[in-house]
Amino acid sequence: MAENMFLYWGSGSVPCWKAMIALEEKGFSGYKNKLISFDNNEMKGEDVLKLNPRGEVPTFTDGDVVVNESSAICEYLESTYKDKGTQLIPSSTKQRALVLQRMNEAVANLMHKMLLDYIYEFMETKEEDMNPDTVARKTQNLKDELNRWNDYLGKTGAYLAGPDFTMADVYFFPFIGFGVRVGLNLDSFPAMKSYYERLSSRSSIKASWPPHWKESPGSFKPLIGKM
Amino acid sequence: MAENMFLYWGSGSVPCWKAMIALEEKGFSGYKNKLISFDNNEMKGEDVLKLNPRGEVPTFTDGDVVVNESSAICEYLESTYKDKGTQLIPSSTKQRALVLQRMNEAVANLMHKMLLDYIYEFMETKEEDMNPDTVARKTQNLKDELNRWNDYLGKTGAYLAGPDFTMADVYFFPFIGFGVRVGLNLDSFPAMKSYYERLSSRSSIKASWPPHWKESPGSFKPLIGKM
Repeated sequence: MAENMFLYWGSGSVPCWKAMIALEEKGFSGYKNKLISFDNNEMKGEDVLKLNPRGEVPTFTDGDVVVNESSAICEYLESTYKDKGTQLIPSSTKQRALVLQRMNEAVANLMHKMLLDYIYEFMETKEEDMNPDTVARKTQNLKDELNRWNDYLGKTGAYLAGPDFTMADVYFFPFIGFGVRVGLNLDSFPAMKSYYERLSSRSSIKASWPPHWKESPGSFKPLIGKM
Repeated sequence: MAENMFLYWGSGSVPCWKAMIALEEKGFSGYKNKLISFDNNEMKGEDVLKLNPRGEVPTFTDGDVVVNESSAICEYLESTYKDKGTQLIPSSTKQRALVLQRMNEAVANLMHKMLLDYIYEFMETKEEDMNPDTVARKTQNLKDELNRWNDYLGKTGAYLAGPDFTMADVYFFPFIGFGVRVGLNLDSFPAMKSYYERLSSRSSIKASWPPHWKESPGSFKPLIGKM
């Protein structure tokens, strides 16, 4: 089946990584793919645009089925290939409720508080142009958010929604991976630190680790490092 | 079953409305509920906080199962009560892929380009403090986004993902409802206008229409009206 699948992706993108972990977990290693360059604006190339008029990655096809949006790709894979690979959304009602909640909590909160409002904004803004009050407020928001996830992990002692790896981990891990890449120090978040270290060697995550991260060090932002 | 369900919600909230449309579509009219006041900060009340430590609505319980986050509530209802009420996520692979994509496209794009970056920002900023270039850029972004959805609707001539009402419509409609409430003029988006008018009288949508919108007119922002 993997040979009928095709993924356009960019290295280091949180949504792309999420889709790629799901593909590995569902047993589709070896799917066809094209690594696009963000620097060269290749997500706006004709091949991507004809499948995804927004010109974004991940852009995914499974035979003649087109699926864009990382969450849609993950849920498509799980619902279409329920019995293949890892079961990522549990059958038990109560467990499923928790996994669905954590998946959506990750997207709704970390996308803003971590990526858009924090990392991306600080990457685009010169230190001298930053308002110290805004920096303090956003840093506290992100710290509170990370503490929340650290507590979830402390309580289960294993994965985000219990003893098993689920779609909640697929959605969550790339945010933390990205955070660490740009200098997030996990020493203040011990449960998350041990989770990060353990999952870094999980085969689906190793296989999909952003290739350019292996080749060059990240640019460490003191802001996120000081948390 | 509805008598075992309980929803905490706020009037006029896009995520609450979405969960409420799903509850109606799945045949759970009459679920127990508490309307909280945003003005009085009741989403931070003890009753909500003990179920949802984030202190947000919608907060939902089904018997002893707690589900927070509007997307999680919608997907929980559909997956737990597949054969009840409207089938909101299709069984056919290709249709399901499209519905999942549109659901996530709505959340990922409209939440930013319409609510956070546009309506909320302009509600919080005095007209004289606005940078005209920023206003022009954000207005264009929102206009492009709305044109995209207008095109989707023009192509199906019915609902977002084809001839049937699906979860894509559950996710999308509250954004447009909110837009119209704050002055969005749909004359430039004819397919969306006819969709809005048609769906406004759909029973799930009528039953869950924000009550305070019926009682008082919205505050019309010329910015969004001029689109």
